[in-house]
Amino acid sequence: MAARKGVLLVISAPSGTGKSTLVHELLRRMEDVEFSVSFTTRKMREGEADGLDYHFIDRGRFDAMIGSGEFLEWADVFRERYGTGRSVSLLKLASGRDLILDIDIQGGRQVRASGIDAVSVFVLPPSFPTLKSRLLSRGSDSDEQVATRLAMARGEADEVKYYDYVVVNDDLESAVDQLATILSAERLRVSRRGPVTEDILSTFPAE
Amino acid sequence: MAARKGVLLVISAPSGTGKSTLVHELLRRMEDVEFSVSFTTRKMREGEADGLDYHFIDRGRFDAMIGSGEFLEWADVFRERYGTGRSVSLLKLASGRDLILDIDIQGGRQVRASGIDAVSVFVLPPSFPTLKSRLLSRGSDSDEQVATRLAMARGEADEVKYYDYVVVNDDLESAVDQLATILSAERLRVSRRGPVTEDILSTFPAE
Repeated sequence: MAARKGVLLVISAPSGTGKSTLVHELLRRMEDVEFSVSFTTRKMREGEADGLDYHFIDRGRFDAMIGSGEFLEWADVFRERYGTGRSVSLLKLASGRDLILDIDIQGGRQVRASGIDAVSVFVLPPSFPTLKSRLLSRGSDSDEQVATRLAMARGEADEVKYYDYVVVNDDLESAVDQLATILSAERLRVSRRGPVTEDILSTFPAE
Repeated sequence: MAARKGVLLVISAPSGTGKSTLVHELLRRMEDVEFSVSFTTRKMREGEADGLDYHFIDRGRFDAMIGSGEFLEWADVFRERYGTGRSVSLLKLASGRDLILDIDIQGGRQVRASGIDAVSVFVLPPSFPTLKSRLLSRGSDSDEQVATRLAMARGEADEVKYYDYVVVNDDLESAVDQLATILSAERLRVSRRGPVTEDILSTFPAE
């Protein structure tokens, strides 16, 4: 048996906040943490690997998994479906691996509703003007897309109140430090350390 | 207004676990943290200062404070009373100071029952034999006292299940690291960072 249960770390943010970079750095820095691989119905692209980038499945199987309550969260994006598997996640967590779920606000709501034991972190930009200049300077979106993202940002940011922790992405290093601190602390939760605690208690004489 | 609410960190352990040393090191290492000063009816001893070591009050005032629900926890020890004040704690927390409460298991129960927002950590020794040899080697207790402490240890250690976090005091430095990590993470809770979050949200245009 693993010495502890893994932490399911849910991370959400308004788009343009730099969440993907943060998650990437966190994965690079910490051991025993892995990125949760989603299921999807979309076609595999060149350079992608099944089971590494996504679990590629067909629509029939995806819908059957919806029907059997197998998704912690799923979404329809441009007619393709994406979802986080429940049993695959629970198996990893039971074996003591921490899982990072990089999901949007809708996904965060579903994970909370699923009743699974998750730790949620909301990443905020230091301010709206900073978010705006970041979105404009990364140059990967059209002006229209930037405008759409900015228009949605307030509603997304308001969702912070439903999360456990908030990290402000002002400086990348300190934001990654904060994510690492949250994960390290959550590993010490009594609810995740049954085996460690029991091992120690078993050395005590009965009263 | 302070940028965040302080964390009320409750720390308990079976006696002999080295909790006082841990708390001392944590206070030395971290800023904005202070030790919660208790109220007591016992006489001030040489070298002690009112308001620093304890708030020294008479029995009449202590009992009036019990009556008005002013204690988060209190106890009778050898006919003298000791208690943690509610309003003094809440004031410090509201001003963004973290408070450390080094209390026994009975005190821990009362704090939980008080409904105050506290974070509780239980410190365990690595094993019963280690606890026994530590108690014997520190030489500050009579054989009878050691025997009493050891007889109570199992019942005390079982209380870990009611706490939020568990820290195993195997190596002092790493145990202090873990306490510091817990405190740092809890400072990032959404529930304690209302002002920070509101400041950021206020820079966003309304939807």
